[in-house]
Amino acid sequence: MRGARVSGAALRPAPRDGLEALFWPRSVAVVGASAREHAIGHSIIANLQAFGYRGPIYPVHPSATQILGLPAYPGLPEVPGEVDLVHLVVPAAQVPGLMAQCGARGVRAVIINSAGFGELGEQGLRLQQAFMDEARLSGIRVLGPNCQGIINTDPSLRAYCNFTNTLPAAGGVSLVAQSGGVGGFILQGLADIGVGVRLYASNGNGCDVSITEILRFYGDDPGTRVVVLYTEGLAEPAGFLEVARAVTARKPVLAMRAGRTERGAQAASSHTGALAGAGRVTDLVFERAGIIAFDDEGELIRAAMAHATQPAPRGPRTAVLTNTGGPAVIATDALVSQGLQVPALAEATVQRLRAALLPQAALDNPVDVIATAGPGHFRAALQALLDDDAIDALLVAFVTPSFTDTQGIAHEIVAASAQQRKPLVCNFMTDPTQPRFQATRAILQDGGVPCFAYPGDAARALAALWRGPRLRQRPAPTPRRPPGIDAPRARAIVDSARAAGRLQLPAQDVLALLRCYGIPLAAAQVVDGAEAAAAAAREIGFPVVVKIDTEAASHKSDVGGVVLGLHDEAAVHAAVSGLQQRLAGLAAEAPLRFLVQAQLAGGQELIVGASRAPGIGHLLMFGLGGIHVEVLGDVVFELAPVGPGQAAAMLGAIRAAALLEGVRGRPALDRAAIADVIERVSCLVQDLPEIDELDLNPLLAWPEGARAVDARIRLAPAAAPA
Amino acid sequence: MRGARVSGAALRPAPRDGLEALFWPRSVAVVGASAREHAIGHSIIANLQAFGYRGPIYPVHPSATQILGLPAYPGLPEVPGEVDLVHLVVPAAQVPGLMAQCGARGVRAVIINSAGFGELGEQGLRLQQAFMDEARLSGIRVLGPNCQGIINTDPSLRAYCNFTNTLPAAGGVSLVAQSGGVGGFILQGLADIGVGVRLYASNGNGCDVSITEILRFYGDDPGTRVVVLYTEGLAEPAGFLEVARAVTARKPVLAMRAGRTERGAQAASSHTGALAGAGRVTDLVFERAGIIAFDDEGELIRAAMAHATQPAPRGPRTAVLTNTGGPAVIATDALVSQGLQVPALAEATVQRLRAALLPQAALDNPVDVIATAGPGHFRAALQALLDDDAIDALLVAFVTPSFTDTQGIAHEIVAASAQQRKPLVCNFMTDPTQPRFQATRAILQDGGVPCFAYPGDAARALAALWRGPRLRQRPAPTPRRPPGIDAPRARAIVDSARAAGRLQLPAQDVLALLRCYGIPLAAAQVVDGAEAAAAAAREIGFPVVVKIDTEAASHKSDVGGVVLGLHDEAAVHAAVSGLQQRLAGLAAEAPLRFLVQAQLAGGQELIVGASRAPGIGHLLMFGLGGIHVEVLGDVVFELAPVGPGQAAAMLGAIRAAALLEGVRGRPALDRAAIADVIERVSCLVQDLPEIDELDLNPLLAWPEGARAVDARIRLAPAAAPA
Repeated sequence: MRGARVSGAALRPAPRDGLEALFWPRSVAVVGASAREHAIGHSIIANLQAFGYRGPIYPVHPSATQILGLPAYPGLPEVPGEVDLVHLVVPAAQVPGLMAQCGARGVRAVIINSAGFGELGEQGLRLQQAFMDEARLSGIRVLGPNCQGIINTDPSLRAYCNFTNTLPAAGGVSLVAQSGGVGGFILQGLADIGVGVRLYASNGNGCDVSITEILRFYGDDPGTRVVVLYTEGLAEPAGFLEVARAVTARKPVLAMRAGRTERGAQAASSHTGALAGAGRVTDLVFERAGIIAFDDEGELIRAAMAHATQPAPRGPRTAVLTNTGGPAVIATDALVSQGLQVPALAEATVQRLRAALLPQAALDNPVDVIATAGPGHFRAALQALLDDDAIDALLVAFVTPSFTDTQGIAHEIVAASAQQRKPLVCNFMTDPTQPRFQATRAILQDGGVPCFAYPGDAARALAALWRGPRLRQRPAPTPRRPPGIDAPRARAIVDSARAAGRLQLPAQDVLALLRCYGIPLAAAQVVDGAEAAAAAAREIGFPVVVKIDTEAASHKSDVGGVVLGLHDEAAVHAAVSGLQQRLAGLAAEAPLRFLVQAQLAGGQELIVGASRAPGIGHLLMFGLGGIHVEVLGDVVFELAPVGPGQAAAMLGAIRAAALLEGVRGRPALDRAAIADVIERVSCLVQDLPEIDELDLNPLLAWPEGARAVDARIRLAPAAAPA
Repeated sequence: MRGARVSGAALRPAPRDGLEALFWPRSVAVVGASAREHAIGHSIIANLQAFGYRGPIYPVHPSATQILGLPAYPGLPEVPGEVDLVHLVVPAAQVPGLMAQCGARGVRAVIINSAGFGELGEQGLRLQQAFMDEARLSGIRVLGPNCQGIINTDPSLRAYCNFTNTLPAAGGVSLVAQSGGVGGFILQGLADIGVGVRLYASNGNGCDVSITEILRFYGDDPGTRVVVLYTEGLAEPAGFLEVARAVTARKPVLAMRAGRTERGAQAASSHTGALAGAGRVTDLVFERAGIIAFDDEGELIRAAMAHATQPAPRGPRTAVLTNTGGPAVIATDALVSQGLQVPALAEATVQRLRAALLPQAALDNPVDVIATAGPGHFRAALQALLDDDAIDALLVAFVTPSFTDTQGIAHEIVAASAQQRKPLVCNFMTDPTQPRFQATRAILQDGGVPCFAYPGDAARALAALWRGPRLRQRPAPTPRRPPGIDAPRARAIVDSARAAGRLQLPAQDVLALLRCYGIPLAAAQVVDGAEAAAAAAREIGFPVVVKIDTEAASHKSDVGGVVLGLHDEAAVHAAVSGLQQRLAGLAAEAPLRFLVQAQLAGGQELIVGASRAPGIGHLLMFGLGGIHVEVLGDVVFELAPVGPGQAAAMLGAIRAAALLEGVRGRPALDRAAIADVIERVSCLVQDLPEIDELDLNPLLAWPEGARAVDARIRLAPAAAPA
């Protein structure tokens, strides 16, 4: 990356420059420099100095001639040399004018540390627009406003363009955070456990340089081994997904998103909408991108430590090697509950261990070499486990008894880790205040062995290493177009509904749309009275069910608008007449029509749904249907479009998957037919992006076939974001 | 406690002394003392010296005259003074003889650090028996063997009778661990985060002094504010429960058990058994005892920190106060997902905050005073939240910007915590290498404010404070005896089955037993042929179902042994004849009989079960029945006996609880009838402790009434442990 840079004026003012100038500034000016200790315009300069920045630093101050030992200048025009990167630490109102000055000076990147913009509302947004207009004129890239800045620990640069306190060691973990507060404590957390950092950025309001761009930049940076990302939501999920997928193919990306439990979640009128939740799109984008996601920031930080030095395992089979009993039990619990395995060892391995270890050693997995074991015992056990092809990863639980050569043991663990054949993490239990154990710890740490004080933490960090490869094992999204789709007719139905201002589609349109996409339905007709209903029933065949068709009742059964088990024409006639009388109130709001539908026997109630996810299309939902949607909430989601592999994976992902596969003498359901319905719904919402929500609930499934017996479709208002 | 002690010989040799001598030894002898550095017999003496033990220390060594500057003695008889506590660090075979010497010397407690006993099998168990016989003769209490020892940090004693390395600060947390390895790292973990310890014990093989006794001792110790407990299983769950319940009434008990995911779980033949799992009893005992249980040892250690200084909240309503945005979002997520609430603040509180804080402050909950806020802003905000009766607890997310008076802010947080009106935890985010922030941290730590580097950790520690009171809000176990129980008849049925060597009870006995306890059943008769079946069906009324009744098939439907929907006598006759032909193979093993049963319409399939839990009676199970037991595993467990409150709570605790309460137009099921069945099953297994497993599956429930339509009962072999 560095090698690709060219020097001099040729780069400037290249329109829409990349992030090179931001992360690799050859010189930095601080406008709003301050002689007052702890002021932001002071801290940035002090940090650059303390961190050993290799380029010139230009304090800009209206009156001071010197700040922190450096000559200060009254304005950007007076700065003598080239200026690559400018910090603006000034009142918000001055920013647009200064941005123009930056343009005139050939500045390539600006970090706006100041607040007072978009986060404060209308007036701030206008200021933001004003400075961005100036920046675009000159091709300046802007980080912020209302942000911390960047850090680049490369020994050739040492750029700490940031006002926080933590000075990280150089290493392979690059970090980008939407929130400076969170970025700050993750940076500190990595420092606390001895993990070196490569690049850091917190982009605040993010009005120009986006998290997606920074992620791409980290992906291209050869010094970045692991990316850690924190976001409170994705502005452009589709673009992020594309970039993230390319980055995870080359290096692990670990991420966390906040806002998992939004208290103010909107009530949605359909099941799909209500269960989708606001953050689900981000979760699915992470998953599809192969990003390793975390709910717990401590776990994320500890997983970064493991990823910084260890390869990914080829599989989940883990050996636990210990010199003390209890912690290995806890580690085993944690490994297994994270989806790893702690299998019995092959007989050949057990033989090798028996020959090499003390007689009291336990040769099971966990292998307990016992507390009196020395370096030789550890070496033999580690090598036996590394050589065993049925073991993919190692967790070493290492306590430091005062009577053993703990430093010798540490060297053996380092040697095993250095082979990089299988990932190795260490649950290192010691008293860090004792010099001899400090030395032991230093051996492990300098040797790149990820060390954790608690067995569960070590196990979870190891499990995180396996999550990346496991995500990549998922079926690739290869959507296909099932036969028998009449897209033009569907388009016409939606356009005319929209033209007529109908958002909640009437049954007639719902039936027609589903038929256009070959989605199997219970035989049905829409009628407007008792006579027509009886005739329709005769044509469909008995028994039938009659349902009201009105926008006024979102859940028909709640208003008694469904009559089941009608076995002859007279019963149908009577049922419709009865509904007309009883629900006359609803008829006053909208004309009352009726759906006459074949009543199907048996079948497992399922749900297939779709809901619009602005910026990335639609979410698809599958799960147990009928009242079980509310009762059990046993549903799973995917991003549309899905291919056959993913549709099948959705079937296998619900808790009640065994119900589909056949259990206790019940035959399997027609999973191919169910998956086909999911694929067809996926095509439907891809073709018709204005569909806001679609529910097939229930979709009835049998050992042969599946049919939707109730369906609702709502369109988004024309003004809704795509 | 200390005040209650009497000195001198009057206490010796009091048979079955308490744990006084173990935790408060007036003198310590180490038999197996060693001059070799890091030997166990050396470390114990060095630890006692380093920790400042107030009593005499007597090294016992066959030849040395001095060890670590102390006069050494060739044997216990030669030790000049009184000996309260003896460490035995000698080959296992010498232990029984030395125990006799201890008895002769009037020793009150012995810690056997040596291994080589019960953990090695038969011969070791004999040695264990031998020294325990000696100990009982003299009333000596024994800790171990194969254990670390004890620590007592009381300033008047400073007893570190233990060979590990961690020298804890004095404080209010007392710790007992079955595994020395786990005890050791918990002790270290508490030291790492600055939590002081009161008493410590690791009892190894636990052949005399039990975890239950130690827990009782900690409960009675006025210096113990919080108890932390680690176990790999409860030897005597009933006794533990009784003691633990008494202790949790006075102080919080935090616990973790290992073995949550035993890979080698036995296959059990009935649902209740298979789902009960080995550790479930411990979990239920913890829950019923009001013990706060943890899966994650790091979370346990951090929760101990919060409990060490903070009161329990009166409710779940939490205010988050922060000077930085993102971490407060993460804290809110973690609080809500832990069952706490982060409610909007009362208007009066918002007004107070608005008057006192900076204009840019966010007055929602989280309250963001912003980074430039100083001590005065924090003071005002803390006081407003302490004064708000609708807030039960405070989480303060405190980042240390270089430009603020962080020490002044820390003093304000300490002052708020010191009021002890509401629990307060702090997510303290700083660079611990900078002296000014070290000073800030010291203010918080010395002021008893629990500080956590990550917001989620702070949130989970606060949530743990609320779990104790929440457990105490659960319905008390007040079992009652429903009317219409014929216990003597039931006893006779079980006795005669057992006498006949029948463990899997035949249908006739099952029906009779359930009838003795008034458990409602579908009308049924057991017959041995087609003629009798037809007659029985006529009596019962049609439709009926016919099921085979044989021990040879554990799941009748798996062998096609169930025929449904028989609507007349001819059909019943034909069905039974068909079964007799088809299952002739089974008949060869045992006489084939048939259960003719009313076929009930509709009804929700539930399961009620019981399985034997040696040492504490039975576990009761309730959940969705039929195939859903396998498919969804939506079941909950309780310890028998249960009262009406607990039975009702079981109904509410399954995931599908809404199904019982009525949902989407479906009426509620007869919850009183279902709870009554659970209570009656509870009485049945209390009266008949030899019942190994009992399943009512399905129990069908309707809006009125509930009836078991299939039931299985198995007895434990006569030799099984009670």
